Amino acid sequence: MKEIWSDKVHEECGVFGVYRRGDELDVVSTTYYALYALQHRGQESCGMAVNDDGVFYKRRELGLVNEVFTKDVLESMPRGNMCIGHCRYATTGTPVRANAQPFVIRHVKGPMALAHNGNLTNAAELREEFELMGGIFHSTSDTEVIAYTITRERLTAPSIEKAVENAMPKLKGAYSLVVMSPRKLIAARDPYGFRPLCLGKIGDSDVVASESCAIHAAGGEFVRDIEPGEIVCIDENGVHSIRTHCGKPTSLCVFEFVYIARPDSVVDGASVHRARRRAGALLALEHPVQADVVIGVPDSGLDAALGYSQQSGIPYGIGFLKNKYIGRTFIQPSQQLRENTVRIKLNPIADTVRGKRVVLVDDSIVRGTTSRQIVQLLREAGATEVHFLSSAPKFLYPCYFGVDVDSRENLIAANHSTEEMRQMLGVDSLGFLSVDGVKKIAEGCKLDLCTGCFTGEYPAEVPASPHKSKFEKKISESAD
Amino acid sequence: MKEIWSDKVHEECGVFGVYRRGDELDVVSTTYYALYALQHRGQESCGMAVNDDGVFYKRRELGLVNEVFTKDVLESMPRGNMCIGHCRYATTGTPVRANAQPFVIRHVKGPMALAHNGNLTNAAELREEFELMGGIFHSTSDTEVIAYTITRERLTAPSIEKAVENAMPKLKGAYSLVVMSPRKLIAARDPYGFRPLCLGKIGDSDVVASESCAIHAAGGEFVRDIEPGEIVCIDENGVHSIRTHCGKPTSLCVFEFVYIARPDSVVDGASVHRARRRAGALLALEHPVQADVVIGVPDSGLDAALGYSQQSGIPYGIGFLKNKYIGRTFIQPSQQLRENTVRIKLNPIADTVRGKRVVLVDDSIVRGTTSRQIVQLLREAGATEVHFLSSAPKFLYPCYFGVDVDSRENLIAANHSTEEMRQMLGVDSLGFLSVDGVKKIAEGCKLDLCTGCFTGEYPAEVPASPHKSKFEKKISESAD
Amino acid sequence: MKEIWSDKVHEECGVFGVYRRGDELDVVSTTYYALYALQHRGQESCGMAVNDDGVFYKRRELGLVNEVFTKDVLESMPRGNMCIGHCRYATTGTPVRANAQPFVIRHVKGPMALAHNGNLTNAAELREEFELMGGIFHSTSDTEVIAYTITRERLTAPSIEKAVENAMPKLKGAYSLVVMSPRKLIAARDPYGFRPLCLGKIGDSDVVASESCAIHAAGGEFVRDIEPGEIVCIDENGVHSIRTHCGKPTSLCVFEFVYIARPDSVVDGASVHRARRRAGALLALEHPVQADVVIGVPDSGLDAALGYSQQSGIPYGIGFLKNKYIGRTFIQPSQQLRENTVRIKLNPIADTVRGKRVVLVDDSIVRGTTSRQIVQLLREAGATEVHFLSSAPKFLYPCYFGVDVDSRENLIAANHSTEEMRQMLGVDSLGFLSVDGVKKIAEGCKLDLCTGCFTGEYPAEVPASPHKSKFEKKISESAD
Amino acid sequence: MKEIWSDKVHEECGVFGVYRRGDELDVVSTTYYALYALQHRGQESCGMAVNDDGVFYKRRELGLVNEVFTKDVLESMPRGNMCIGHCRYATTGTPVRANAQPFVIRHVKGPMALAHNGNLTNAAELREEFELMGGIFHSTSDTEVIAYTITRERLTAPSIEKAVENAMPKLKGAYSLVVMSPRKLIAARDPYGFRPLCLGKIGDSDVVASESCAIHAAGGEFVRDIEPGEIVCIDENGVHSIRTHCGKPTSLCVFEFVYIARPDSVVDGASVHRARRRAGALLALEHPVQADVVIGVPDSGLDAALGYSQQSGIPYGIGFLKNKYIGRTFIQPSQQLRENTVRIKLNPIADTVRGKRVVLVDDSIVRGTTSRQIVQLLREAGATEVHFLSSAPKFLYPCYFGVDVDSRENLIAANHSTEEMRQMLGVDSLGFLSVDGVKKIAEGCKLDLCTGCFTGEYPAEVPASPHKSKFEKKISESAD
Repeated sequence: MKEIWSDKVHEECGVFGVYRRGDELDVVSTTYYALYALQHRGQESCGMAVNDDGVFYKRRELGLVNEVFTKDVLESMPRGNMCIGHCRYATTGTPVRANAQPFVIRHVKGPMALAHNGNLTNAAELREEFELMGGIFHSTSDTEVIAYTITRERLTAPSIEKAVENAMPKLKGAYSLVVMSPRKLIAARDPYGFRPLCLGKIGDSDVVASESCAIHAAGGEFVRDIEPGEIVCIDENGVHSIRTHCGKPTSLCVFEFVYIARPDSVVDGASVHRARRRAGALLALEHPVQADVVIGVPDSGLDAALGYSQQSGIPYGIGFLKNKYIGRTFIQPSQQLRENTVRIKLNPIADTVRGKRVVLVDDSIVRGTTSRQIVQLLREAGATEVHFLSSAPKFLYPCYFGVDVDSRENLIAANHSTEEMRQMLGVDSLGFLSVDGVKKIAEGCKLDLCTGCFTGEYPAEVPASPHKSKFEKKISESAD
Repeated sequence: MKEIWSDKVHEECGVFGVYRRGDELDVVSTTYYALYALQHRGQESCGMAVNDDGVFYKRRELGLVNEVFTKDVLESMPRGNMCIGHCRYATTGTPVRANAQPFVIRHVKGPMALAHNGNLTNAAELREEFELMGGIFHSTSDTEVIAYTITRERLTAPSIEKAVENAMPKLKGAYSLVVMSPRKLIAARDPYGFRPLCLGKIGDSDVVASESCAIHAAGGEFVRDIEPGEIVCIDENGVHSIRTHCGKPTSLCVFEFVYIARPDSVVDGASVHRARRRAGALLALEHPVQADVVIGVPDSGLDAALGYSQQSGIPYGIGFLKNKYIGRTFIQPSQQLRENTVRIKLNPIADTVRGKRVVLVDDSIVRGTTSRQIVQLLREAGATEVHFLSSAPKFLYPCYFGVDVDSRENLIAANHSTEEMRQMLGVDSLGFLSVDGVKKIAEGCKLDLCTGCFTGEYPAEVPASPHKSKFEKKISESAD
Repeated sequence: MKEIWSDKVHEECGVFGVYRRGDELDVVSTTYYALYALQHRGQESCGMAVNDDGVFYKRRELGLVNEVFTKDVLESMPRGNMCIGHCRYATTGTPVRANAQPFVIRHVKGPMALAHNGNLTNAAELREEFELMGGIFHSTSDTEVIAYTITRERLTAPSIEKAVENAMPKLKGAYSLVVMSPRKLIAARDPYGFRPLCLGKIGDSDVVASESCAIHAAGGEFVRDIEPGEIVCIDENGVHSIRTHCGKPTSLCVFEFVYIARPDSVVDGASVHRARRRAGALLALEHPVQADVVIGVPDSGLDAALGYSQQSGIPYGIGFLKNKYIGRTFIQPSQQLRENTVRIKLNPIADTVRGKRVVLVDDSIVRGTTSRQIVQLLREAGATEVHFLSSAPKFLYPCYFGVDVDSRENLIAANHSTEEMRQMLGVDSLGFLSVDGVKKIAEGCKLDLCTGCFTGEYPAEVPASPHKSKFEKKISESAD
Repeated sequence: MKEIWSDKVHEECGVFGVYRRGDELDVVSTTYYALYALQHRGQESCGMAVNDDGVFYKRRELGLVNEVFTKDVLESMPRGNMCIGHCRYATTGTPVRANAQPFVIRHVKGPMALAHNGNLTNAAELREEFELMGGIFHSTSDTEVIAYTITRERLTAPSIEKAVENAMPKLKGAYSLVVMSPRKLIAARDPYGFRPLCLGKIGDSDVVASESCAIHAAGGEFVRDIEPGEIVCIDENGVHSIRTHCGKPTSLCVFEFVYIARPDSVVDGASVHRARRRAGALLALEHPVQADVVIGVPDSGLDAALGYSQQSGIPYGIGFLKNKYIGRTFIQPSQQLRENTVRIKLNPIADTVRGKRVVLVDDSIVRGTTSRQIVQLLREAGATEVHFLSSAPKFLYPCYFGVDVDSRENLIAANHSTEEMRQMLGVDSLGFLSVDGVKKIAEGCKLDLCTGCFTGEYPAEVPASPHKSKFEKKISESAD
């Protein structure tokens, strides 16, 4: 089953933080519900750090929220007055527990907890710098590098928020960061705003989250997006901002709209669901097809399929049932099924496609192996034509800012022409949304968009070559 | 979270059996994939019994297929030449492991395994009859009663299939049955055909399953439905039928089309997905509404919503995101969320409904508590009007044939007028598909349909009052 | 590590029952502590059945008491007014959950629970008899046969105790039985008294147990042994006995004193610890040796070693440390250790044996493989001579009454002369307690002793050949 | 059951390391067996770090060796050429996973793994020093302080062993340390030699261990003790020593002989078993009693009881059976047992003590609560007199060097006269081995002994008051 899941661009991370005002709110439960809502951003590990009047308690493990935070675990945690949470898919560092977040460390001013989403482009340089001063590292994660950077500034800065402000110019790349000190909750977003980060309220209490859906799921209200470069400091005096690093060119990841963010979220002013429907509508304009029905690949292709249908006038259909009981322990299919493992998870509804010319919409094509199997299922179910349309442009380049696009040799579009791909997928026609098109999907978005994975043109400096601390690989296999 | 899940008519059971011909097929893996595809019919327990050249091995546990059949468990099972599987939601008997199926017992002719879907109406009488002859029962399940009934006939019958034939007139009510003897696989369906049962092939091997989707998921092809009253005997000589009990009035459960069966299945000649779209279309004819968008409650309301949209011309929208990461260990929400626990699982997409008049389609209304919360979510997300339409008629009566409709005092429709219900749900209008309407949904279905839960008119005799073996409750609490 | 544990005669089963009088006693906890104290009699599976005012609840699993009865499980059980418990090593039937005890079944008079220790010699005949009348069996265990036998009598008997009385002449072989009906707790011991069974009190409540140690561990007092052939019925009227089957020749298993029972138990009037010391003293008389120190193999050889030392005047020493942290998940040693896997578990104390002539006492020799490794450890630790003495005679014959002596081809004594064995073990001398000697060890015992495994002369008829129901093996591999 | 286990001086830690020469040895299995043999030194957590040609892999968890290192875990670990292991009872830091060892960190020269046994007296000062330079701490353990200290020296030292040599003068207190670099295995013992550490061989491979028993259990041979102050460096050139810090006054913990070390170990030249027998013999000289039998409290009082018996001529008896099946999940006894919870675990053998005057020997008395219950069991079993003798002197003072003596208010001897204690325990007489006596027990020991916990006179400077880093408690509750 591994193939089914792995033939996707990997999500990355979600962060959340809550600062309780008044006695009502249970910060642990609040974070628990928020992490459920952010689970789509990372399913590899998750964790929470609770601040119980200055005493920090953390719990982090490999696994989904519902696996890690069992009833026993939740009950064993102190209630506290602040809590931060994280869910993770490893973009750097290896999928081991030592890299799970939040990090809780002690430094000269006491305990500090950190959770972050993003990817530093100068992590290796910073790490070496600290090692040369006697620093020791327990993980291969960027987060420990950030912790050192803030701690170094804290030696001279008058406050934790000032230390964060001073540290930000040292940190290159993408970061949406939540920091918890004994008395403050701080959120910071890199000046480009690569990853989303927003502010909300639950009653009188303040929360920060990667996406607005987490605030709603926790029973709160969205207040506003945190600006690129902004530092938000939440403490007993309320919420105040440091905007020293704001006002530079911005570059929000467009793939947040195409695939990563949840459809019910609104990111930097733009509805994700609407953006996906617009992607479908733009696809219809760029790639008109004569067909009888438009269907999407569940779940991420459904919105764009609906948009295609609405623009083109071709009826929308429900083409697949997705088996919702397939767990992570699903066993590798036996011989008779191996040629099409997708059929365990996705089942075509013959009534929708039999004898029809079908437009099949998916969010993207990475390796193409799953797409080919899906097409084959439609053929078996009686589709007479299959037209495959991708609501993302062709993946051609790596991402340095927090998304795990597959390695170049695996990217089908990087190695084949559209016609070759059409034949490989076995479809009657194949189309991708254009880069110009994808730039238009996020209607109302206040930021500019990064399309580096499609164009190879990045808004910020990227490493000349894959560059890692020379010792990084040395402890990379640890399961602990 | 319990409330979210429990406010539904409960599914019941799924059965599967495979008889290998040739060396290729792994019967255990085949059954494993088939059970995944039948999981929607019962999520309480599951099991398999393998026949390894006459030696029977069974495994059954409370839990989902992916919880019970881990890699270790699957590897520990012999490969065998026949296998039967079962997934279960308890309709009679209690949710304990002793009632999990398949049953494997030894009788005078050796071992026998049974799995069944349905509900006997004379189980209590039969049980008492056997007890008075010295019989001992390990479970409270109908299946053990069926085992005794077949065993008694087997004392004099020349073959196991003849014993099943002779036993059938003793068994009243609903049963789709799979029986495995050392050398034969037998499938039998009650003369009314209350529950589906069909025959398929995987290469040269023969399979039987509750629904055609299981055959496809296991990589095979649907051959035909098993007729009401038919006994299919699969052995070294091939597949042959006994039709002694066929040809009587039939009565397939209509709720299989409305809710129970999987949309990609075809039951007794009718596509389930199409039946649901037809239900939506009929709803549009019976309950026309002036509105801007039609949305369905995921997952079971989506097909009917699409049908409503297509018939009415009102645009179809994606109104909710369903959180797919909510596991069975989800913890009861804390205070601030309690008034609307549904928001953890279902998240409205504001962009779809804000400022709109919304038609909301669901498959049915049982208690109404969840429906009310869903409506409230739409209001919060900005819907200006909400029109709630149910693609099933009002639930007013109990089912004696294998579906666990809630008790009468909990059925909102049995205790309130439509107007009262409209107010309770907080909607602008409320409509149910008529009984006449629901009878028309299963286009192409070869059987007549049972609508007893809507009308109180049953095709067969039902018990005068809830009647149980007088000792049944005596061991009812066992977890083992 | 398997070899270390398996080179022993296997223990068999322990039973316990409690009937609460007054409100104080928690029958579940009481049974839990009692099962801990009986764990040495069977480590394969354990279980309890609670009677909560006529409602029976059972829990039984493969595993040790501390694995099966976790805090969650214990808390989930009703408190009840009666409880029976069982721990098991499979002597017939296979080590599968279906054979774990207690059995809880329903028959014509309601629920009944049974737990038993022993082995019927006519189980196969009885099973066939019931199968020919239409009976179905869920297990391969003797206990289900006993349940049928009692149930058949109950059809005509006026009470459950009378049914047990009428059933006993049908049951051949060894059984110490606990039966629980809705209102009565019944204990019965076969007329030979092969296995121990005794009566006790905890405050006003009555208990029965395989060994007195369980009564003490549960905080109660030993009252008396249950006589061979006696049926004890405990109900609201108190404790009363049926002695119809008493007064015949008795035949308590001598190996209960040598190895099976716990040293702090008193069985049928004889202290087990004293019996083992006497075995050591008799060994010293039968096998005098010139030596410097006497040591025992922990744990079962220590008592006899002390007895040898006291009789011979040779100082007692502590020769081994037994590693108490070796769990059931211990992994097979790697290459460098394979030649002596015992060294993980048993560590010689060099200070005790270096430069000494050592008398090494163990309870018995089965295969001899472990004994040889133990001797080798002593040599490595510097012992100059090793004299191996067994406090049991040579194992030469099978046991038909509940002890799992190894198969004859594995019994070293059945295949080799004493001199051959001496060479195989690598010792300077080797001696076994004589059969006449072992008959004298149980000072004060009120019963005669069975020594069939040493002599081949059995007190009762034994099967002509290994005889099993012809279908028994057919479902023998089930893990459920 | 907590009380039973907790009324003991707590053990501390065990360390092990192996450097493979040749292809034969499996370093992971070797460490696994060694940790089993060191489990008595710490049962709270355990771990291993494997060096697979410079790539480090670690695994550490709360739990026993057999819980943490399951088959799956062991198989998932690389085989490697070096491995270090650790088992731990927390003496400083809290019982959380973050404090489990070994630590694996990366510093300027690459990865380094550390495991240590002992307690620094200047950890707080060192920690603060590093924090003031920007250091961040992930744990509250001394081991992270040691890692920083060595790393700081490594910035300028030409080799890891030189860095350890330079770091040692900074580290005050007790430490037996194992350090693994990409190419070297280093062992170091503090100049006082508070804790044992020794060197061995398995074939051509070199090992270091806290106790000789671990070397034997792993199939190897003891070579020699590592001297106080010695640094042993094992690399491709063989084993070489740095003795710069040797030759100072030594001070091995005497309680290693009384209780901590395993009886089959030989520590710094003295047999532990012999030391315990000598303690018993010296007790007999200091506290002669007229009695009929001498028994020990299992397991740690047995050796001294034997010594007492041999010196006094009073017969040795086996007075208790210890239940070996009591697991860590044992549930708190219910009401009827609460007054004497010890009876679940320890069962008196009445035959040994009934009607007798009993000398009862235990290794020490901490709180006295368990001792009182044990005495009561003997009275119930019929002992006419009970004379309690402790083979350790009275515990009166804290230990600063790695043993977790209870807090002073709980130490019965620190708060009561001997006569008061005698009455509290309910015994006929009570005696403790004298401090002069305990100094003589370790026959052949090459080091002087620390008796600080008995006398309050310590060989090295101890903190003026309980002193912790001011932030240490701030994250002390973390379970992760």
